[in-house]
Amino acid sequence: MVESPIKPIFVTNKQKALNQIVLGVDIGGTATKLSIVTEAGKILAKSSFPTHATDNQDPYPQRLLACAKNLLQRQEASAELLGVGIGAPGCDPERGYINYAVNLPFSSPFPIRLFFEENLCAHTELIKDSSAAALGEKMWGGARHMDHFAVLTLGTGLGSAWYLNGNLLTGAHQLAGELGHTVHIPGGRQCSCGQRGCLETYISASGLQRTLTALMADRITDSPLRELPEQQRSAQKITEAAQAGDPLAQEALQRCGQDLGEALAKIVLQIDPEGIFLAGGLAQAGPILLDTVQEHMDKNLLSPFRGKVTVAFSELGAGTAGTLGAAAQIFRTKKYSRVHPK
Amino acid sequence: MVESPIKPIFVTNKQKALNQIVLGVDIGGTATKLSIVTEAGKILAKSSFPTHATDNQDPYPQRLLACAKNLLQRQEASAELLGVGIGAPGCDPERGYINYAVNLPFSSPFPIRLFFEENLCAHTELIKDSSAAALGEKMWGGARHMDHFAVLTLGTGLGSAWYLNGNLLTGAHQLAGELGHTVHIPGGRQCSCGQRGCLETYISASGLQRTLTALMADRITDSPLRELPEQQRSAQKITEAAQAGDPLAQEALQRCGQDLGEALAKIVLQIDPEGIFLAGGLAQAGPILLDTVQEHMDKNLLSPFRGKVTVAFSELGAGTAGTLGAAAQIFRTKKYSRVHPK
Repeated sequence: MVESPIKPIFVTNKQKALNQIVLGVDIGGTATKLSIVTEAGKILAKSSFPTHATDNQDPYPQRLLACAKNLLQRQEASAELLGVGIGAPGCDPERGYINYAVNLPFSSPFPIRLFFEENLCAHTELIKDSSAAALGEKMWGGARHMDHFAVLTLGTGLGSAWYLNGNLLTGAHQLAGELGHTVHIPGGRQCSCGQRGCLETYISASGLQRTLTALMADRITDSPLRELPEQQRSAQKITEAAQAGDPLAQEALQRCGQDLGEALAKIVLQIDPEGIFLAGGLAQAGPILLDTVQEHMDKNLLSPFRGKVTVAFSELGAGTAGTLGAAAQIFRTKKYSRVHPK
Repeated sequence: MVESPIKPIFVTNKQKALNQIVLGVDIGGTATKLSIVTEAGKILAKSSFPTHATDNQDPYPQRLLACAKNLLQRQEASAELLGVGIGAPGCDPERGYINYAVNLPFSSPFPIRLFFEENLCAHTELIKDSSAAALGEKMWGGARHMDHFAVLTLGTGLGSAWYLNGNLLTGAHQLAGELGHTVHIPGGRQCSCGQRGCLETYISASGLQRTLTALMADRITDSPLRELPEQQRSAQKITEAAQAGDPLAQEALQRCGQDLGEALAKIVLQIDPEGIFLAGGLAQAGPILLDTVQEHMDKNLLSPFRGKVTVAFSELGAGTAGTLGAAAQIFRTKKYSRVHPK
């Protein structure tokens, strides 16, 4: 653990401020999102900026800090900053570093926890983005009353987190939750990790795009999506087309739902959860996805498991789930506090 | 929970006997095994009998009880029976019933916990056989210093258990650990559960037999195993033939090792364990199996995971691992005790 020069202050119940806030930071490959969150899960203010700089912009850490300070300075004077929770892919939560995330603007491991502790004088915790999603779902989402559940984040990639026996599963080396890189189809689609057939090449926003492209080659069905270049056939466009009745888009979503249903059945048979929550952009696809998922999950379960597992979209909302989850880790422990740095 | 007419006696540390023993019972589809186990994991005495009766024999519960009483009566007078631990497939540990196990001689759910409590006046606990294997490995085997590991039991079927964050994972409905019925090859081999392509139809003693039979059809390689009828080509015979240099048997074991290695990689990527232990009859296959498993597991891991996971055969011994694991659940809690019923 990197030693912070700032010693956190322990807050007893007597000292507890009425107006405690947490800064939740969600670092994604496309956008970085920040929210000021209360213990009730209310978002008091939020902001975001593109993770990758355009010409002449400050380096990422400076842009991140400016955005954070700007948000915090707009809070009431009585507000007490309990801490900063950060969710990011490819990070080392124990040491507080962002490590090996290919889509982030760091050329070498960046000590992000220390950076926030030094610049905001605030207790800071770092967590894997998918683990943050699980904590948010437990604290304010559909998993509030559950002790055994899984969260899958269907974004550009496929993230996953397990919450079992009332605890987040981080694994023996803080690496748990790489379901996205388990092989779904041996010798299948090429994955950016170097393997072939990884689950995330089928079940994710980019997986859905690839499924549509494959169907375009295989089918002669007409579709307005054929008019668009590959990059513009986003998961959102495919979902909208499917909802408007486009058969090619509908088939792509159903294929994705079948793959996901089969994957969920394997999770259920192994860990026997109460619920599985789907977060991220693809979770906007609605019943056309969820109904297929449920059908194919049930088909692949032993009978004692059927009807016991809730499969649902995250209740936290696609745009803010990441920052809420990042903030949840601070409220969860609530051990430390710093005075609001205004 | 079924109410027992016997109220267990709480034993404080002061009252702790020097000579505490547990009766471990391992109910399998072929044999039922019983051991008298000490807290150090020493087996003082053991016995076994065929689970299915031949003509004119007593019903199963009576044969089980007779065997248990016989073992217990041979113990020293000072021995204190701490309890009876039972491991069985298809059971309901919370209610204490053996439920839906197709290979066991019960035509309807049998209240085995109550049966032992009434007839031996001993605190009794029931657990899934694969969970028992995990507890035994934690208490006396290779997982002694681990808080995150998995155990796979490669017998007639494929059992599995997870020990995560320092606790056995039983799941939300006591159903966790059915890895054997996750689909390994869609549309693949017919499984007794009604599905196709279940992992246990490839990775288990019976799976190995089927792989050999498939290879016999596919290859023209000569092999002494071709002289035997199907039922006699046991996993043990295949292993012995492979060790004696038979190429067909070697290929069958390597295929099994590849399938198992791929399956273990998926487990590692999801839960990030310290170790995975292979128990059951097939775990006798030695390096010819283990080396292939390790190779194909590594091939399917992301680089941060490589070299971090121990894959090993159970340290408890194939013949006694089941009864040791069943006994471990009693020592683990050590809350209750009954006087030795002699």
